Amino acid sequence: MSECIFCKIVHKEIPATMVYEDDDVMVFMDVGPIIKGHALVIPKKHYDPVMETPDEIVAKLHITAKKIAKAQMNGFGADGVNILQNNGKASGQAVEHIHVHVIPRFGNDGHHWNWNPKSYDDFNEMNELAGKLREQL
Amino acid sequence: MSECIFCKIVHKEIPATMVYEDDDVMVFMDVGPIIKGHALVIPKKHYDPVMETPDEIVAKLHITAKKIAKAQMNGFGADGVNILQNNGKASGQAVEHIHVHVIPRFGNDGHHWNWNPKSYDDFNEMNELAGKLREQL
Repeated sequence: MSECIFCKIVHKEIPATMVYEDDDVMVFMDVGPIIKGHALVIPKKHYDPVMETPDEIVAKLHITAKKIAKAQMNGFGADGVNILQNNGKASGQAVEHIHVHVIPRFGNDGHHWNWNPKSYDDFNEMNELAGKLREQL
Repeated sequence: MSECIFCKIVHKEIPATMVYEDDDVMVFMDVGPIIKGHALVIPKKHYDPVMETPDEIVAKLHITAKKIAKAQMNGFGADGVNILQNNGKASGQAVEHIHVHVIPRFGNDGHHWNWNPKSYDDFNEMNELAGKLREQL
């Protein structure tokens, strides 16, 4: 039996507050919301991380996340939505079953991501990194 | 002429350090990286926010983001990747042309998102919010 907590939710071995379910994906409430109303979109089949997830599942997860974002705007009167998908412990990922966070945002919600942009030393440094990516594509 | 900075990049009116380009999407380096190597995936056509973006473009953006994430893992030796898409000023979105941040992460990179989970007062509070989402789907 899988020890993955999200697989246990898929198999109804542990409860979750369900928002949506179809053959491929499940959406349920995050019990530790960044902002109340925060939902998670997962595939029913276990994949992790995004790099190992089939393209059609990646597409389905994010088309579903869009629907949930729209529901948060209309249902909660949210002013905005963060859609976030973390891969690897270094990124902050906690459960190793791919999941998309859909987080409703309000103008007065008091939450601030640590968005502290860095600078490149010079153009060459940025261009070299871009080159390393281009080589991999 | 569009005043959108990303449309100007698409139309080569202002420069960007390009990583990838096809008929639908463009990938270039973020000049204010959270972590050096941070790339942006955008559609060439102007859409914003995700709720107003066609499903096939949402899918294409995220399948492309997956490819970039893999390139960051293999090309930079990254330990993880954050994939983040913000909608609305309240979410932290700066440029109003849908874009997916693909941010390479390293075990020692020193970056921490403000990940401070809240708690629901009780199960009913969470269930009521889930109900508001279900009504919209």
